[in-house]
Amino acid sequence: MKDKLRVGILGATGAVGQKFIEVLDGHPWFEITALAASERSAGKRYADAANWIGSMSIPPAIADMEVVAAAPDLEADFVFSGLDASAAGDIEPLFAREGYPVISNARNYRMAEDVPLLIPEVNPDHTALIDQQDRGDGFIVTNPNCSTVGLVCALKPLVDRFDVDAVHVVTMQALSGAGYPGVSSLDALGNVVPYIGGEEDKVVTEPTKLLGRLVDGRIEPAALRVSAQCTRVPVLEGHLEAVSVQFRGTVYAEDVKEALRTWHNPIAGYDLPSAPARFIEVFEDERFPQPRRHVGLGRGMTVSVGRIRSCEVLDVKFIVLSHNTIRGAAGGAVLNAELLVRQGRLAKRAVAGVVAG
Amino acid sequence: MKDKLRVGILGATGAVGQKFIEVLDGHPWFEITALAASERSAGKRYADAANWIGSMSIPPAIADMEVVAAAPDLEADFVFSGLDASAAGDIEPLFAREGYPVISNARNYRMAEDVPLLIPEVNPDHTALIDQQDRGDGFIVTNPNCSTVGLVCALKPLVDRFDVDAVHVVTMQALSGAGYPGVSSLDALGNVVPYIGGEEDKVVTEPTKLLGRLVDGRIEPAALRVSAQCTRVPVLEGHLEAVSVQFRGTVYAEDVKEALRTWHNPIAGYDLPSAPARFIEVFEDERFPQPRRHVGLGRGMTVSVGRIRSCEVLDVKFIVLSHNTIRGAAGGAVLNAELLVRQGRLAKRAVAGVVAG
Amino acid sequence: MKDKLRVGILGATGAVGQKFIEVLDGHPWFEITALAASERSAGKRYADAANWIGSMSIPPAIADMEVVAAAPDLEADFVFSGLDASAAGDIEPLFAREGYPVISNARNYRMAEDVPLLIPEVNPDHTALIDQQDRGDGFIVTNPNCSTVGLVCALKPLVDRFDVDAVHVVTMQALSGAGYPGVSSLDALGNVVPYIGGEEDKVVTEPTKLLGRLVDGRIEPAALRVSAQCTRVPVLEGHLEAVSVQFRGTVYAEDVKEALRTWHNPIAGYDLPSAPARFIEVFEDERFPQPRRHVGLGRGMTVSVGRIRSCEVLDVKFIVLSHNTIRGAAGGAVLNAELLVRQGRLAKRAVAGVVAG
Amino acid sequence: MKDKLRVGILGATGAVGQKFIEVLDGHPWFEITALAASERSAGKRYADAANWIGSMSIPPAIADMEVVAAAPDLEADFVFSGLDASAAGDIEPLFAREGYPVISNARNYRMAEDVPLLIPEVNPDHTALIDQQDRGDGFIVTNPNCSTVGLVCALKPLVDRFDVDAVHVVTMQALSGAGYPGVSSLDALGNVVPYIGGEEDKVVTEPTKLLGRLVDGRIEPAALRVSAQCTRVPVLEGHLEAVSVQFRGTVYAEDVKEALRTWHNPIAGYDLPSAPARFIEVFEDERFPQPRRHVGLGRGMTVSVGRIRSCEVLDVKFIVLSHNTIRGAAGGAVLNAELLVRQGRLAKRAVAGVVAG
Repeated sequence: MKDKLRVGILGATGAVGQKFIEVLDGHPWFEITALAASERSAGKRYADAANWIGSMSIPPAIADMEVVAAAPDLEADFVFSGLDASAAGDIEPLFAREGYPVISNARNYRMAEDVPLLIPEVNPDHTALIDQQDRGDGFIVTNPNCSTVGLVCALKPLVDRFDVDAVHVVTMQALSGAGYPGVSSLDALGNVVPYIGGEEDKVVTEPTKLLGRLVDGRIEPAALRVSAQCTRVPVLEGHLEAVSVQFRGTVYAEDVKEALRTWHNPIAGYDLPSAPARFIEVFEDERFPQPRRHVGLGRGMTVSVGRIRSCEVLDVKFIVLSHNTIRGAAGGAVLNAELLVRQGRLAKRAVAGVVAG
Repeated sequence: MKDKLRVGILGATGAVGQKFIEVLDGHPWFEITALAASERSAGKRYADAANWIGSMSIPPAIADMEVVAAAPDLEADFVFSGLDASAAGDIEPLFAREGYPVISNARNYRMAEDVPLLIPEVNPDHTALIDQQDRGDGFIVTNPNCSTVGLVCALKPLVDRFDVDAVHVVTMQALSGAGYPGVSSLDALGNVVPYIGGEEDKVVTEPTKLLGRLVDGRIEPAALRVSAQCTRVPVLEGHLEAVSVQFRGTVYAEDVKEALRTWHNPIAGYDLPSAPARFIEVFEDERFPQPRRHVGLGRGMTVSVGRIRSCEVLDVKFIVLSHNTIRGAAGGAVLNAELLVRQGRLAKRAVAGVVAG
Repeated sequence: MKDKLRVGILGATGAVGQKFIEVLDGHPWFEITALAASERSAGKRYADAANWIGSMSIPPAIADMEVVAAAPDLEADFVFSGLDASAAGDIEPLFAREGYPVISNARNYRMAEDVPLLIPEVNPDHTALIDQQDRGDGFIVTNPNCSTVGLVCALKPLVDRFDVDAVHVVTMQALSGAGYPGVSSLDALGNVVPYIGGEEDKVVTEPTKLLGRLVDGRIEPAALRVSAQCTRVPVLEGHLEAVSVQFRGTVYAEDVKEALRTWHNPIAGYDLPSAPARFIEVFEDERFPQPRRHVGLGRGMTVSVGRIRSCEVLDVKFIVLSHNTIRGAAGGAVLNAELLVRQGRLAKRAVAGVVAG
Repeated sequence: MKDKLRVGILGATGAVGQKFIEVLDGHPWFEITALAASERSAGKRYADAANWIGSMSIPPAIADMEVVAAAPDLEADFVFSGLDASAAGDIEPLFAREGYPVISNARNYRMAEDVPLLIPEVNPDHTALIDQQDRGDGFIVTNPNCSTVGLVCALKPLVDRFDVDAVHVVTMQALSGAGYPGVSSLDALGNVVPYIGGEEDKVVTEPTKLLGRLVDGRIEPAALRVSAQCTRVPVLEGHLEAVSVQFRGTVYAEDVKEALRTWHNPIAGYDLPSAPARFIEVFEDERFPQPRRHVGLGRGMTVSVGRIRSCEVLDVKFIVLSHNTIRGAAGGAVLNAELLVRQGRLAKRAVAGVVAG
């Protein structure tokens, strides 16, 4: 315990904040020492302040902690931000300025030039952007939108091997991606909603940064076009995506399978606690992957791919599944923090005169 | 009543047969006079033979009818076939040979050269293929697969106006399309199944015939490629489809909207009882169409289109919704029969010495 | 058209108000002439003010009407109130005072001594309470809670024939009963919520008034106890209830069936437009009734009963199903108005100097 | 590993058999050494023979095992039976005769006089019935129906403290209780089915045996009546039950809460691997328990109780939730086996000349 890094959660009572608590339960490197939320919740016992929506109980030690205001005087070596976009824009830079590394799930700074948009298996070198940040003694690192993550994880081995020209994706996204209370049950039950506000823009723009190359301290975006149609389906967890890819040059479905199977995972030797045994699981059974059956693979951190075959219009098409609140949110952010630890970018710090342990 | 055509239903106890009964309830031109099913059901009262799954009750007059074997001695001027593909292959030609027009929903003869694959608004002239048929005094006419129908209805105005090169479609199909008992609830609830056996082939092949031109008594297939990814979602009725279209030549989203709005419906003046007031409903609200809200438009015969906008990879993309068991099955077949009446191809006939009325 | 009564809808943009519009579409006696809602909506076109959630489109004539404020100067012979309880308490008496009959679905005045809590088939004579009202030239009539209605309809024939001592009911209620957005999809999908705020109290108290006798201008409550456990299940429309009844004296399941089948409906001869052909449908098939299949019987106005059998703890148990937003809300209120017309208690009135037609 | 007992699974490819495999994964005392199924599956690799429906992958060691026929020559110290009732009737006695202890989830022998119907926390002494068995060197022990378990667990502390006269239960049961493919999605989605064949009889009869007293080597049934109404709701896992209890003598809701909280668990000191930290979790939040949130408590072995309050018709009512395929099936059977180990009734045996380890 003495060696664990102390972690603060910003937006601790919201849906993403709750997921951070679930994912960090029993974490070998990180220990939650501060739960920050809005003024309305500050001063309350966590179990009273949060409308806990998870299927796991609140860990007892967390339940009794007092919620504090989201001010940069937390007893923490760094913070995870599960803040809403409306709050993250102001609060996250404040924490960075006061010396806190901010590992954020919010969308606000994802496309900022000096902020890494990070998936450890995809672009671990992008953390070098931190060196460009002039945001105080701390810094901000972000993870992508939940609908971007699975797509980009599946594309990375293809981009590394082939010349990807264009990507067409239709998403079937889970309800939990909308937070709580989120989607009305009258819109969800037995229905599909063919629109999710702001979502398609993120799927179109984030992949070019994630798959871009770091050149002279800047990200050179990947030269590929993305078309996205995002829909909401009555599924609790797991975004399923129908992807078609067009390459420059001839690439067959078998080539894509081969690329996925033989790709070298750059963090393979890092032994990060949240990294799944298999980054990508490729299914041969044409009925798979399915959200209900496979969303939990690798404790929600594995990305599943199936039905790889030729496309009559573009070149190759396939199905991708990823867990939207674990790999696509809290779990992804925690893995980002683990990478930063391995890279020596996250360490103990003295906070407000208090030393943990 | 005296003037109504007498109708037999083949496969009357199955899911499609039941839908024929629902759709024909109170029909002004057609009257069900024979219910045919397997030997197992023959001789039973219909209400006892059928495991009625609909939300409307069995019409009382139908409930008490006796089910007969599917032999070509029915008291009927023509038959609707809701037979399974396993039975339709043999039984439908038998009825045609014995003089019955067979208006079929089965897949067996859809791609046969001499058989019209018919959507009245799309290719009403294709019924001329009947003249090529050498199948006895009767004939066979088919309607397309439920996942093909909505797509082709939305494409028709585009094909008429522009030069369509390629179509990419991802379907989110309702459970009722799989019949009864069909999909297990453990596969359906809170899940998406990214595969439907045989479905994608139909979506790839049927549109080229439907959108083809009749030249010298044969169908010249439309020169367009289709790529389909079919999925099953937990929706009861209504197939939603995400469609992207590539044109030869420059076509913008506004052109597509304009084409859909100004297209001339070739059966506009026919006054067919099952034809909806609006063949295609175009939505501006980006949240629409949705299965739960819009599947019933035009009593299930209207095709809904929304989110028409430019595609970053192909040219234009949009959403299509159609009712899979009405427009996509029983209702479509009934509309086909109505067209044939208007064209003078369906009329009263003497059957087994019995004259109705 | 000249003879139709002019109807105003209070709370016209809400979920109940929308259902009033659906139910009144094409009504032979009533014509919507005023749509009233909050100040926020006043002045807007109805289609713009309402977030229409129904599966039927907004009737075109309604879509273009201007929403007005809920002030008692509407051009209407009477009003239906779909107001929230927070607004109904003040606004309904105001309309009554200004001379409008108020046919309300709100809960506020249901248990008021001078206000009929009305189900036409159950207690049509209770409208005599109107004569006791000293609320201005108008009056207020209410219909019961959606979870009370089915139960009381099924109990009425039993109360008429036997001496009912106690009723134990467990409800499985549809999501639409909570309005829009109502229940979060994360609480609804694949879940049951064993609590609905305020609901059990209504099921316990309303039946004794509904089944009470009118004595000297007052309601003498029925001498029966009710125990209710209300749950929310992932169903869109239709409250299913598991009911067990204890009688004073010996009553068998067969007696209950007989009572339900032979009961005389007091409004049988009234020919009310919304009254179903069958008030109660009794099923012998032990799998029935089910929400998805039977909620629409009698256009949502029939109450379904099944599985009538002896109870090992009380005397007889059975299942009841009723449509919560039609029989249990808007449809029930419209039927109440129809009864009042037949009883001569609703008629044309001069409003603000305007005469309809 | 050397000390683990060798376990055979009868009916290994079915839904219950699969759950046994999940529950036994990583079990500290038991190791699966034989997978038995029908002749059709025998000889196949398990992963090929089983249509695996779980959300966890098949454990790799299991996936490659060869399925054998269900004949009593398995290399196993005892067997778990997940057989269908149609097969269990013949096969289970055969295994007992050949010396295998049979820990069965099938219904066939539950009510047999000499067979324990066992829930370790409820009636651990009932295993003494084994001494009465004259079924060969082996024996049969059963666990109750999935809808009985939660009810009886919640009743046990009440029966121990008070004089329970009657129990009224309405169940809302999960789809997984019907096996695979089980319930059709068209019957499940957005629906409630108010009937489950054979289920109510089990809920009525099994509790009297489970709660009965062992007297002179026989079970004296508990003197209480049970009335059950069983329904199927669109939930994947977790049977929710609305229970009302009538006592002889005065018992209040507070007494029930107190009894549940202070009850002494007879296996508290046994340290059985599958026993949950809390046998019964009592909720004060009136919205709880709910299947989606709480079914996994105690890894599916905790029984949840909530909404304890007085009943207007009987005495006290409450809600019970239990996991139907873990506590109510495979997990319950494994706990039974663990109890038998502690009681010295399960041990290593020589099988067909083979000794494990």
